[in-house]
Amino acid sequence: MTLSPQSLPSLETSPIPGLVVVRLDRRDDSRGFFKENWQREKMLAIGLPDFGPVQNNVSFNADRGVTRGIHTEPWDKFVSLATGRIFGAWVDMREGDSFGATFTLEMDTSVAVFVPRGVGNSYQVLEDATAYTYLVNAHWRPGIAYPALALDDSTVAIDWPIPLGEAIISEKDQNNPGLDPSTAIPAKKT
Amino acid sequence: MTLSPQSLPSLETSPIPGLVVVRLDRRDDSRGFFKENWQREKMLAIGLPDFGPVQNNVSFNADRGVTRGIHTEPWDKFVSLATGRIFGAWVDMREGDSFGATFTLEMDTSVAVFVPRGVGNSYQVLEDATAYTYLVNAHWRPGIAYPALALDDSTVAIDWPIPLGEAIISEKDQNNPGLDPSTAIPAKKT
Ligand SMILES: Cc1cn([C@H]2C[C@H](O)[C@@H](COP(=O)(O)OP(=O)(O)O[C@H]3OC[C@@H](O)[C@H](O)[C@H]3O)O2)c(=O)[nH]c1=O
Ligand SMILES: Cc1cn([C@H]2C[C@H](O)[C@@H](COP(=O)(O)OP(=O)(O)O[C@H]3OC[C@@H](O)[C@H](O)[C@H]3O)O2)c(=O)[nH]c1=O
Repeated sequence: MTLSPQSLPSLETSPIPGLVVVRLDRRDDSRGFFKENWQREKMLAIGLPDFGPVQNNVSFNADRGVTRGIHTEPWDKFVSLATGRIFGAWVDMREGDSFGATFTLEMDTSVAVFVPRGVGNSYQVLEDATAYTYLVNAHWRPGIAYPALALDDSTVAIDWPIPLGEAIISEKDQNNPGLDPSTAIPAKKT
Repeated sequence: MTLSPQSLPSLETSPIPGLVVVRLDRRDDSRGFFKENWQREKMLAIGLPDFGPVQNNVSFNADRGVTRGIHTEPWDKFVSLATGRIFGAWVDMREGDSFGATFTLEMDTSVAVFVPRGVGNSYQVLEDATAYTYLVNAHWRPGIAYPALALDDSTVAIDWPIPLGEAIISEKDQNNPGLDPSTAIPAKKT
């Protein structure tokens, strides 16, 4: 807990270019906590892009073991928790040297991650009643198709804390293909 | 639960001008739920203003009975829950005919409320481990002073489900003044 009024969140890089970890200034008190989960000016000050969120999603997970992903939607994400704890896992799906690079991180409510588009996003829930909340900078459309990667892909080999055989996974996420360089996402045109 | 892909959230007005209730399209499944908590295009389509959020805050409440407010910060708010249940209470603090008007609503994760600036915001937590998450369109600054109203003001007389004597309230919120028309917030200049 940091009480200094000027304290900025701190930023850490990762092996995936553009994917950064943000340590938030969570303020605990007798009621619970308060946090600025995302604050445009401060995020710019520490070096995040001005990504322009247009949608805030919440995925609530009743049970430990729920595992969602690995989804590579065509937008940037700022992911965080309102309560609970997860194991986050990311895979670079963009063509180039870092294709297939992975990053994993245990997250509680004091951490957020900026996930650039082209990076596959997933998480496993470590505590019952975990609420995952995130901001994205493009609108989802019904029926939109986006690349997804099998949670048990043997090349990226994510070391899930809870074996996938015991995990709670949507039907859709049980049918995603393995890593295939021929489907790498082209670099964004400017 | 609505599964129609085109379904928009629905909007209800309230006795406080500009304060509207949004019923969200929460999608429950075996994992928990997913919801678009705020989605710019859809919110505009149902008539919300294009309020331009720059900050996303989370206040987590460990225990039933936590009561926060009544705060009239100089910005609009889009308030919602990531998990849990609250009793929300609002008081119009703007000068004019509706000064002192109140509105209350029990909220779960399927409801959100747009609170225009000039309206005092407060809530009482009805379930342990309730995570309140909201968007605002101006940045908080350390030391900022804003009008606050006593939770037990006898004129507005909010009918709290949990008696305030049993509530968990910050020291700051135990020292707010009562309703005073001479401190009404002037209409916003254009
Ligand atoms: C992403 C999204 C989904 N939906 C609907 C479609 C389904 O009815 C329901 C759940 O969608 P899923 O695709 O099953 O979501 P999930 O597997 O939980 O994945 C989502 O949450 C975790 C995120 O990592 C992922 O990017 C996101 O797609 O919500 C929406 O209405 N709006 C959306 O933005
Ligand atoms: C509002 C705000 C607060 N803070 C800090 C100041 C304190 O260290 C801590 C908690 O602040 P409080 O003023 O005690 O917050 P609280 O009483 O919970 O009220 C807040 O949450 C409920 C909201 O209704 C209210 O508008 C908002 O001010 O967080 C920030 O760092 N950034 C902020 O935006």
